[in-house]
Amino acid sequence: MKEKNSIHVFAPATSANFICGYDILGLALDEPGDEVILKKVDRPGVTITKITGDNGLLPLDSTKNTVGACVQMILDHLQRNDIGIEIELHKKMPIGSGLGSSAASTIAGLFAINQLLGEPLSRKELLPFALRGEELACGHGHADNVAPSLLGGITLIRSYQPLDVINLPVPSELCCSVIFPHVEVPTRAARQILRTQVELKKAAQQWGNIAGLVSGLFSNDYDLISRSLQDDLIEPARSILIPEFDAMRQITREAGALGFGISGSGPSVVSFTKGLDKAKEITEILKEHLKSKHIGSNGYSSTVNTRGAVVIS
Amino acid sequence: MKEKNSIHVFAPATSANFICGYDILGLALDEPGDEVILKKVDRPGVTITKITGDNGLLPLDSTKNTVGACVQMILDHLQRNDIGIEIELHKKMPIGSGLGSSAASTIAGLFAINQLLGEPLSRKELLPFALRGEELACGHGHADNVAPSLLGGITLIRSYQPLDVINLPVPSELCCSVIFPHVEVPTRAARQILRTQVELKKAAQQWGNIAGLVSGLFSNDYDLISRSLQDDLIEPARSILIPEFDAMRQITREAGALGFGISGSGPSVVSFTKGLDKAKEITEILKEHLKSKHIGSNGYSSTVNTRGAVVIS
Repeated sequence: MKEKNSIHVFAPATSANFICGYDILGLALDEPGDEVILKKVDRPGVTITKITGDNGLLPLDSTKNTVGACVQMILDHLQRNDIGIEIELHKKMPIGSGLGSSAASTIAGLFAINQLLGEPLSRKELLPFALRGEELACGHGHADNVAPSLLGGITLIRSYQPLDVINLPVPSELCCSVIFPHVEVPTRAARQILRTQVELKKAAQQWGNIAGLVSGLFSNDYDLISRSLQDDLIEPARSILIPEFDAMRQITREAGALGFGISGSGPSVVSFTKGLDKAKEITEILKEHLKSKHIGSNGYSSTVNTRGAVVIS
Repeated sequence: MKEKNSIHVFAPATSANFICGYDILGLALDEPGDEVILKKVDRPGVTITKITGDNGLLPLDSTKNTVGACVQMILDHLQRNDIGIEIELHKKMPIGSGLGSSAASTIAGLFAINQLLGEPLSRKELLPFALRGEELACGHGHADNVAPSLLGGITLIRSYQPLDVINLPVPSELCCSVIFPHVEVPTRAARQILRTQVELKKAAQQWGNIAGLVSGLFSNDYDLISRSLQDDLIEPARSILIPEFDAMRQITREAGALGFGISGSGPSVVSFTKGLDKAKEITEILKEHLKSKHIGSNGYSSTVNTRGAVVIS
């Protein structure tokens, strides 16, 4: 493909863990997501000229911002430091929400520079750079958000060493409702609350559910998916940090969700549904419930986004 | 179906765990297996008249033998204590081998009595009785051997409460080589050697592999199956009890096996292969290797048996 002078891309938010798949499963949402605009300029070097939507939280220093750092990594890798790049980052999603905010920025940056340069690398070849971007942005190079944001759909990280990412099938009616309650749960705190040791017996229950979930995805069996969407290992600890968690679970169960749990490390929660109408219904009910408890929230209803990062123009 | 006066059935040996699926996965072998012959007699009651192939290890008391106990459970359940049953059990497989010896007997008994009575229960309806039989025979009511022996193929125990058993697809060329080295590893000892707590990090690696294995089975991806056949949780502890384990692993790797590990709780080991010829080749090499170390063994080469228990006559 030909090199371009400027490009505008979108990378979607993601929901990691898929309830029973801690650290290995993730899926892409239709919305929200981040947008990045890159422009080639004459003077070599990578500069961030504008960030919107971050409430001043993100660094403009391009060596400290995951988007700038990722663009620089690709220029280094391809030995293209002859060109200069100006970056605009438009954050269109909440930071620290459990929806892969840093991953969306990382992927937007990597996808944009690769497109700008005429796509010298495949999508999967961008993944190792994305892990380094995540390491910079949040201190741990996890792939469960960057993989679905880049590739779309539902992704399985089978292994980190070597990195082995598999796209799982997406049942056509599988949708989700995501609620971001306006409380703060830093990823670091959500990780620290977890025990480093777990009972073997409970771990074996968990892998029964993971195997059931993967089977359900392959066989389009919504009932099996629903039975498998259980997490007795991570959720009991992390859900303590999320207000109204048990009440929201009860509400989604009564409303007919396939399953309910924490999105990533929270505080967002995700409900899986058969059909987008059901997802929209649950999003409304949960927002109303939180409002009645004086908790603000963002709500998103989404199919599973099978495209991943895309060029806007 | 009509009631019969006598029946002769076969229930296959099984290999539980499938390397990365501790306590949740199992598969049925073509051979070995157990045979049971039931005869209706006039005098009510369940009697074991003959056991062969057990080296005198199994109790003839029908309340203490899993076959007798299972036949009695079904008669009680169906309120058919008006009839009498005489049982012959022909063990055609080693006991305490890690090949589901007690499960094969349990299933042969349950399947036989259900067939004799005209199949009042479905195969899946026999499973709860099989768990009680396993509880009697080996002190824990696990389903990972009884489910594949009864249903055939590769079975996933997604959950015990409620019992949720799923048949996974069987790639047509998937075969295995099973070697039973003549050393004793009681199931109880193999369970006791396991830690009750495991590292969360390692557990997450394990569920990556389980998800990868299930994906590979559904997508006929032998390479993915092979990459997923790893167990860093259970094997490091249990393999200590198995002679020549590391050497056998190395041999199977060089011979082109998809994966190698412990069958059930050992001491049998299983190698997965693409094609029966490769399985036969590996069976021969491993038997030769053990012989050179003065260790006797039984070897079996098998497709994945998709029929499970069958009527012989």
